[in-house]
Amino acid sequence: MAGTADLHPPDFESIIDAARLLRGVAAVTPLLRSDALDARLGASVWVKAECLQRTGSFKFRGAWTNISRLPDARRERGVVAYSSGNHAQAVAAVASLRNIPATIAMPQDAPAIKRARTERWGADVAPFDRETADRVGFAEALADDLDRPIVPPYDHPDTIAGQGTVGLEIASQCRALGIVPDAVVVPCGGGGLIAGIATALGTAMPGVPVHPCEPATGDDTIRSLQAGRRIALPGPVRSVCDALLADTPGALTFEINRRILASGAAISDAEALYAMRIAFEDLKLVLEPGGAAGLAALAADKVPCRGRTVIAVASGGNVDAGMFARALNSPGTR
Amino acid sequence: MAGTADLHPPDFESIIDAARLLRGVAAVTPLLRSDALDARLGASVWVKAECLQRTGSFKFRGAWTNISRLPDARRERGVVAYSSGNHAQAVAAVASLRNIPATIAMPQDAPAIKRARTERWGADVAPFDRETADRVGFAEALADDLDRPIVPPYDHPDTIAGQGTVGLEIASQCRALGIVPDAVVVPCGGGGLIAGIATALGTAMPGVPVHPCEPATGDDTIRSLQAGRRIALPGPVRSVCDALLADTPGALTFEINRRILASGAAISDAEALYAMRIAFEDLKLVLEPGGAAGLAALAADKVPCRGRTVIAVASGGNVDAGMFARALNSPGTR
Repeated sequence: MAGTADLHPPDFESIIDAARLLRGVAAVTPLLRSDALDARLGASVWVKAECLQRTGSFKFRGAWTNISRLPDARRERGVVAYSSGNHAQAVAAVASLRNIPATIAMPQDAPAIKRARTERWGADVAPFDRETADRVGFAEALADDLDRPIVPPYDHPDTIAGQGTVGLEIASQCRALGIVPDAVVVPCGGGGLIAGIATALGTAMPGVPVHPCEPATGDDTIRSLQAGRRIALPGPVRSVCDALLADTPGALTFEINRRILASGAAISDAEALYAMRIAFEDLKLVLEPGGAAGLAALAADKVPCRGRTVIAVASGGNVDAGMFARALNSPGTR
Repeated sequence: MAGTADLHPPDFESIIDAARLLRGVAAVTPLLRSDALDARLGASVWVKAECLQRTGSFKFRGAWTNISRLPDARRERGVVAYSSGNHAQAVAAVASLRNIPATIAMPQDAPAIKRARTERWGADVAPFDRETADRVGFAEALADDLDRPIVPPYDHPDTIAGQGTVGLEIASQCRALGIVPDAVVVPCGGGGLIAGIATALGTAMPGVPVHPCEPATGDDTIRSLQAGRRIALPGPVRSVCDALLADTPGALTFEINRRILASGAAISDAEALYAMRIAFEDLKLVLEPGGAAGLAALAADKVPCRGRTVIAVASGGNVDAGMFARALNSPGTR
């Protein structure tokens, strides 16, 4: 992948343009509430259900935007991507819809459903060992061999602009509902989703704090925000939140996030699984562990919400039956 | 309960009026699709996600409409209802929101989550034995004792009008999406939801067949449609579809349904559980067994959908973790 030094954060207009590209292609996902959830948390909680997005996560938005903005001649040879699963499915879906080939580098331990769904879209999957291989280097070698561009999962202005359309929709749905949120909580891996959302809200709904929610074992963005510079965690991150395993913030995403994010919340595996159970009971939504990180931050009181109006972005729902059964057995429910 | 001989089917205007009563109170539930579901069934499938309705099922619509239309003096003493669970929660919620008392007769074997949620709304639960007691007689005695009106779960024009707002929303969402469905499949217990939907669609989107989907062990509406008169099944119905256990169609609902429904589909327990797994995998929705009966009819090819555009009403998502785990283990998935 080309360095990001020459890449600039997307501005609000770029996100508006991404929304135009996505119109009629991506779902406008609903902003949901539940009396049971509000009673449970003592708050007014609105859930942006990106698990209901095409391919089961917000990643479709960035992949479509990124690939749509490739020069035609560059796009038609196909694309390469690296991903633990959700970006893989999204790129595979976009490639299929646009009738171009896709090759996806995926860790060997990615959830089976994510690999199966990627292959079902017709993409070639190239597995690598997350513990030993450098995924970016692995994907770059693939891209060189195939003479195809890489679709970066987060550290690219067009990817960030696409993910930022989640923020545009939140702002317009809040206006339609007549609500003004006190805070927004967003699951955070490489930081592309939250960078896009915070950029969009900075113009469309300014003054609302946007909190990143990360696995406690992968709190690279939280540490980096505290340090004021990108901190790389030692060794690979292990967490049930397979969508949030980044060990260092993206260069471009952190350039955005360090300026505009509020404080972060570090989530344990048990808290993520419990939040999945809450989503099952109160919202009738299937969330994957990483997709539930925002809700987990509220339920664990790591972003205080009592008496407040908050928005939790539920970023994805691609979870194996086995992991979901673990969440159903999660203790601590009422 | 008063006999229904003096009650007349709600007309389209009554459903329009119910939609006005429900505005800003009930959720306008999304009409969802999934590439994975379409590929699985070889069809264009749209799912009306009433599991995302307040209290987790469509029943809120009828309960709110019915109670709102009671004379003020009659309403303020409170209400009585009988229900296996979803209507119970709905009446309890409406009573709580309107600050009136509610007493609900519930079968002893109702799912624990439904009873717990009913009590959490502040309603009194009066349990009865579904195998031996007559639930209507039991509720009537309660209502007499308390001098309160019964809110009928389906066999009442105001209840049916409220449920019919699902049909209004389907018609308007189809128009917005530019789709014309070839068929609509709807879970059917006492027949109130499908009577309301079919009435609404008869005016708002005429000519689209509406198919009732029942448990094979509780196919009273299917048998009655074939016979042209109400057929009572012998003995209590046993099925995983606890929301669809009616053993005879309602008098009023059947008066409507016998004139306007298309052929029915009888669903096995295994088919309902498999449809729940499909909703988990492809839609990221939590459905209860009865709520999945429409999707089950499509997946089991009991309402043919290949190459067609169909709408499946997913009527509820109130399911215990244990039953959901059974669905996750359902065989026959890909």
